[in-house]
Amino acid sequence: MAQDKLKIVPLGGLGEFGMNCMAIRWQDDIIVIDAGLMFPEEELLGVDIVVPDISYLTENREKVRAILLTHGHEDHIGGLPWILSELNVPVYGTEFTLAYVEGKLEEHRLLDDADLNEMIPGKRLTLGPFSIMPIRVTHSLVDCVALAIHTPVGVVLHTGDFKIDLSPPDNKPFDLHAFAELGKQGVLLLLQDSTNVDRNGYTPSERAVRPKLDEIFSQTKKKLFFSCFSSSIHRIRLAMELAHEHGRKVAIIGRSLDNSTEIAQDLGYLDVPQGLVINPGQIRDFPANKLLIMISGTQGEPMSALSRAAVNNHKFAHIDADDTVLLSSRVIPGNEKSIYRMIDHLERRDAKVIHDDGQSGLIHVSGHGSQEELRLMINLVRPKFFVPVHGDYRHLKRHAELAGSMGVVEKTILLEDGDVLELDKGSATKTGKVTVGRVCIDSGGTSTDVVEDIVIRDRKHLSEDGIVLPIIAINKRTGLLENPPEIVMRGMAIPEEGLIAEARQVVQRTLEGSSSEEKADYGVIKEKIRNDLKRYIQKSTSRRPLIMPVILEI
Amino acid sequence: MAQDKLKIVPLGGLGEFGMNCMAIRWQDDIIVIDAGLMFPEEELLGVDIVVPDISYLTENREKVRAILLTHGHEDHIGGLPWILSELNVPVYGTEFTLAYVEGKLEEHRLLDDADLNEMIPGKRLTLGPFSIMPIRVTHSLVDCVALAIHTPVGVVLHTGDFKIDLSPPDNKPFDLHAFAELGKQGVLLLLQDSTNVDRNGYTPSERAVRPKLDEIFSQTKKKLFFSCFSSSIHRIRLAMELAHEHGRKVAIIGRSLDNSTEIAQDLGYLDVPQGLVINPGQIRDFPANKLLIMISGTQGEPMSALSRAAVNNHKFAHIDADDTVLLSSRVIPGNEKSIYRMIDHLERRDAKVIHDDGQSGLIHVSGHGSQEELRLMINLVRPKFFVPVHGDYRHLKRHAELAGSMGVVEKTILLEDGDVLELDKGSATKTGKVTVGRVCIDSGGTSTDVVEDIVIRDRKHLSEDGIVLPIIAINKRTGLLENPPEIVMRGMAIPEEGLIAEARQVVQRTLEGSSSEEKADYGVIKEKIRNDLKRYIQKSTSRRPLIMPVILEI
Repeated sequence: MAQDKLKIVPLGGLGEFGMNCMAIRWQDDIIVIDAGLMFPEEELLGVDIVVPDISYLTENREKVRAILLTHGHEDHIGGLPWILSELNVPVYGTEFTLAYVEGKLEEHRLLDDADLNEMIPGKRLTLGPFSIMPIRVTHSLVDCVALAIHTPVGVVLHTGDFKIDLSPPDNKPFDLHAFAELGKQGVLLLLQDSTNVDRNGYTPSERAVRPKLDEIFSQTKKKLFFSCFSSSIHRIRLAMELAHEHGRKVAIIGRSLDNSTEIAQDLGYLDVPQGLVINPGQIRDFPANKLLIMISGTQGEPMSALSRAAVNNHKFAHIDADDTVLLSSRVIPGNEKSIYRMIDHLERRDAKVIHDDGQSGLIHVSGHGSQEELRLMINLVRPKFFVPVHGDYRHLKRHAELAGSMGVVEKTILLEDGDVLELDKGSATKTGKVTVGRVCIDSGGTSTDVVEDIVIRDRKHLSEDGIVLPIIAINKRTGLLENPPEIVMRGMAIPEEGLIAEARQVVQRTLEGSSSEEKADYGVIKEKIRNDLKRYIQKSTSRRPLIMPVILEI
Repeated sequence: MAQDKLKIVPLGGLGEFGMNCMAIRWQDDIIVIDAGLMFPEEELLGVDIVVPDISYLTENREKVRAILLTHGHEDHIGGLPWILSELNVPVYGTEFTLAYVEGKLEEHRLLDDADLNEMIPGKRLTLGPFSIMPIRVTHSLVDCVALAIHTPVGVVLHTGDFKIDLSPPDNKPFDLHAFAELGKQGVLLLLQDSTNVDRNGYTPSERAVRPKLDEIFSQTKKKLFFSCFSSSIHRIRLAMELAHEHGRKVAIIGRSLDNSTEIAQDLGYLDVPQGLVINPGQIRDFPANKLLIMISGTQGEPMSALSRAAVNNHKFAHIDADDTVLLSSRVIPGNEKSIYRMIDHLERRDAKVIHDDGQSGLIHVSGHGSQEELRLMINLVRPKFFVPVHGDYRHLKRHAELAGSMGVVEKTILLEDGDVLELDKGSATKTGKVTVGRVCIDSGGTSTDVVEDIVIRDRKHLSEDGIVLPIIAINKRTGLLENPPEIVMRGMAIPEEGLIAEARQVVQRTLEGSSSEEKADYGVIKEKIRNDLKRYIQKSTSRRPLIMPVILEI
């Protein structure tokens, strides 16, 4: 292997959406950009999250200098607890990104041992042979950066996730000048976000949703429920501003939303007027037309606050006739069924549901740049070589075609996870393959028993940890159990008889404690059964088998 | 129960998409409109199709006069084999619809005993107290009708699925005059298709896709693969016309597509020039730019011809670099992942993939009327009462709102499956509930062993038929089996040891006989395992257990 070559080694995110992770190596020094997770496809039953296989890093553990984070989304930081527990190296991120990381590591009791370092946009840092300049970019989240990595053979620019928002709500604009300056000096390689390569034109500014949201606030006569991704700080800020202007108090429901809001407030991204926010318990003290209820669960996640409110099973969030529910988010492909099931429940309560159906006006904008923004970036930095990142194969391919057709770039290279790209000042060549893959993690559902959350479900040990299938036959007409639940266990390597009988009772109790609406929603009921059974089995056997509820309609 | 009331009893399709079925009753006479199936949600593992519970019909079996079919789509006729095997009553449908029905009943060996009767648009038929006029409507399929049912209390008009296509490719136009005439005479109740109630304006004509398709034919320099729903006769006709004009031979790959084309040709809906169609085996005899390959599998169904071709595992369909694959269809919600997985495979072969991504021009149009067409129908027939049919709850609700806001209808009523609506000349009242529900059927996958295809998987008998879970641990890096497959069986009520060992071998052989691309596609590999194991278990035990492959990545 040539010693005077820079190596680019994508470990995740090139060939899939999510689990972004890339190694950059010069001789005996490696830095890593991002450490993301991915949510599993349905085929991977019983798996909660998926993270990249980092064999390449652990096999070179003495060479890894740091992990650099571009921003705080799960697909960029969510794999950190797992990676740090394998390889505890220094982590660099902006102030806001680190606040998210701290929460996450604390949950996994990894914070005390972690070496977290703040990265300030515009301020260089040096790691071995690399000198890194973080550059402010705009995205749906705040405090995001691209990374200009000065290496012995030239500058490698990684955009992170970005759009070019010329009027971000936090007035911290995209740093056009820094990119222009880089373009003047010369960029060897541009690694650019491919997410929206299929979209023409420009992505609208975050501010562009204000008029429509303002209109909805004006027209709502009863309670207004507002749901967005919990990390959409701009959106949360906007909703709070509008609530203030329209004389509504704000109640926040949902742990992740609560957490995000708190961090954003601490770091000055939210300026919340005194008395605006009330506790969920105070909702009953205010008239319906004086309330904005910010609630998590845009994707119809079975156990989210909004899904539970939709079947009238939330302590504080009660959705009544003529209330408005605004989903200020997109429908993530694959989530249609759970989202529409939730919307149907809401409609049955005669709530007015506004979601991104293409006809509701601009209630959501993407955080990723469209084609013209991708072209603008390429024109600004004029890279010699170009590699698209973040996307399924077809996005990467389309993006390489887009870049190649501009007459600016000398060569575009299509990489997938595990490919090794070797660079010097004049050449870029795909040379080999390293081990990559996906590691499945069963995080313990919504359990707050976080110590063991980090336990990796190494599926090789299926025969030790085993598998449990609660099989529930529900009579569709009556919603009642047809037979006692069947429990199939395999490979638990412990006496199973008593356990099965008790597990059966656990499932039965869960069913008895669920409303008929919950029971009609298989997503919800399966998640409840899974959580209760997992808790019981862990307590009584200290094992963490794969639990896969199966519901049979009769 | 009032004897002088007409009763409308929806048994399926009101509150869900699919399994359309509705009973209309006057005293001791019942007619049934449509007998559809639904494809199951993912929660119902191991279930192939879902049909409506017809207890209401079987409990009144001596009263049921006939089943009337509006058109030949699966969500309107797919439940027939099951319903007829429970309740063998006369079936009425148009010529084309009956051709589909015949094929279906023959597969299930029910054709000999079936009483099929042709319905001719514009020609009345009498069934007990009902006099029924079928009226020609337009849709994505040919030979579709609405049904004007003259009853003792007035006319009930059921639209079936429709759009108002003013220039259908078969020149058999929507019968505006018949609806206008009905409007003059007076309609008591309109039951109208809600599918596209969320869309503004008018749905374009089927002919509207011609210009864009023509352009694609012009620009394609290599093989052109064309995929559409197999029942889209208009689309198939258009593709054949264009192939003829552009000097391409047509090969048809896929059983359902083959079957549809044959029926359409027999009944004069396709006028195929001599020598245009070649056998798939002849593909190799023609240059790439002289070939149109019509291939089934628009939704990325794991075992479809196109999915197999995408991983280079089809005997006749070989997709090479610069071939074009045109998916002239929509992405059905829930199928995104399998479709995009297939597209990624196609892109890896450097095929040009054109699909309905909102930026490919008009390569597909819907078969259902949009808001203006729904309004036009309401204005034409001016019903006293209005009930929306075919849709999730939110569609029905939106449709009732749309109709109610027009000032034409006296009363709109929102019904769900099982609700009973009682009507006389002056009133329409929801009065009660009958038993409804969903029945899950395991049809035996792609097996052609059709006799037993009709066996209903009564899930109450899980303990007799049992459940089999082949659990396969695949090493993601190598694509190899990590351990011998685990087989979990439960409730088979027969000695299991030898069976398990052999089942393990069956799975292993399936895996060995699969390409690495197939193994990387869990949808494909699970379907293969399921089919092979099902065949083996049925042969050796005569049982039909639920088979649920589980794949674990390591």
